Amino acid sequence: MKLYDSKPAPNPRRVRIFLAEKGMPLAGGNIEHIEVDIARGEQRNEAALARNPLGQIPVLELDDGTCISESVAICRYFEGMQPEPPLFGADPVAQGLVEMWNRRVEFGLLGPVGVAWRNGPIVARMAPGRFRQNEQAKEDAEEAARRFYRRLDGWLAERAFLAGEDYSIADITTLCTVDFATALVDLAPDPALSHLARWHAEVSARPSAKA
Amino acid sequence: MKLYDSKPAPNPRRVRIFLAEKGMPLAGGNIEHIEVDIARGEQRNEAALARNPLGQIPVLELDDGTCISESVAICRYFEGMQPEPPLFGADPVAQGLVEMWNRRVEFGLLGPVGVAWRNGPIVARMAPGRFRQNEQAKEDAEEAARRFYRRLDGWLAERAFLAGEDYSIADITTLCTVDFATALVDLAPDPALSHLARWHAEVSARPSAKA
Repeated sequence: MKLYDSKPAPNPRRVRIFLAEKGMPLAGGNIEHIEVDIARGEQRNEAALARNPLGQIPVLELDDGTCISESVAICRYFEGMQPEPPLFGADPVAQGLVEMWNRRVEFGLLGPVGVAWRNGPIVARMAPGRFRQNEQAKEDAEEAARRFYRRLDGWLAERAFLAGEDYSIADITTLCTVDFATALVDLAPDPALSHLARWHAEVSARPSAKA
Repeated sequence: MKLYDSKPAPNPRRVRIFLAEKGMPLAGGNIEHIEVDIARGEQRNEAALARNPLGQIPVLELDDGTCISESVAICRYFEGMQPEPPLFGADPVAQGLVEMWNRRVEFGLLGPVGVAWRNGPIVARMAPGRFRQNEQAKEDAEEAARRFYRRLDGWLAERAFLAGEDYSIADITTLCTVDFATALVDLAPDPALSHLARWHAEVSARPSAKA
């Protein structure tokens, strides 16, 4: 199978970290790793659109030609193929709670960070005209992201990882979002949010975070 | 267990349809069904915020007090408890593809319909000041929703249901979004999109659609 990937983007990193946590190597394993040059628009050429008509990365192409896009969908496939260690929850209650936490972070943080990014200076410079800029949406998204960081800090005061005592896809989503927001959207968490900082240091110290 | 529900909202309906497709009755079964009055803000009173600090409905409260919010997370729990018929995919490939289609619809249609709703006349009248109104965001969201309807029509020309030959959570998400967009956001699909109309008539004819 082939994984169409992009190093700088936050969503593909979720898949790379997921695979690292599963002990499935990207190099030397049975996954052919293909880096797509987003800056050159390679994710929207004809062959890429045949794999994913939405023109997004990552995409997993199975040996029979079936293509799975959406980072979490690719992770679901790998969870089914190799259940251990479970990263979507080990039983129905945990599966519900991991899904809940992953979605809370996606809607409450990843979504707003994406809006701030699309309406920010890098996109305006690199892809002028691709998105109609909306300053009010950017401001509201930044405020929503900061509010969510404060919520996160409170939740992480009470547990080791987002969904409880076990590391999960919800931690992967949060780590990739925070690092992207810090590096490319000027939306780093306030360092005074000490529980969020403790959690971030711990998940960043796992070998998978280098993925 | 208790399901905190709201009849008019699109997300709780996803859970009701899911349960109907599983053959798990909301009345007379082992789920206590509690209708929450959103117009009166009951989802944000102290007891409700203890169940879900985000103040959203639906919430499933298990007998040990564990609370699962987010519609799809509640559905995941029920899928784990009663796997048949599978509504998230029967094997790893199907699980990946169902997740992909559900997410395409959530990000491509449910998200924009939600933006159009929050910036539309009903919210401005019923909850003045709750959201800063953004006319440009509303226009862009309406255009995105119409564009996605055209994509949906093309996809549904080639298959019975969103994710292939089997009905899934992706169909539930799409049905609830289309019906909400039609009834409350003035964003009904163009009837000329005949494949989308064919699919909509078929899924609406299932007994679960009355949920």
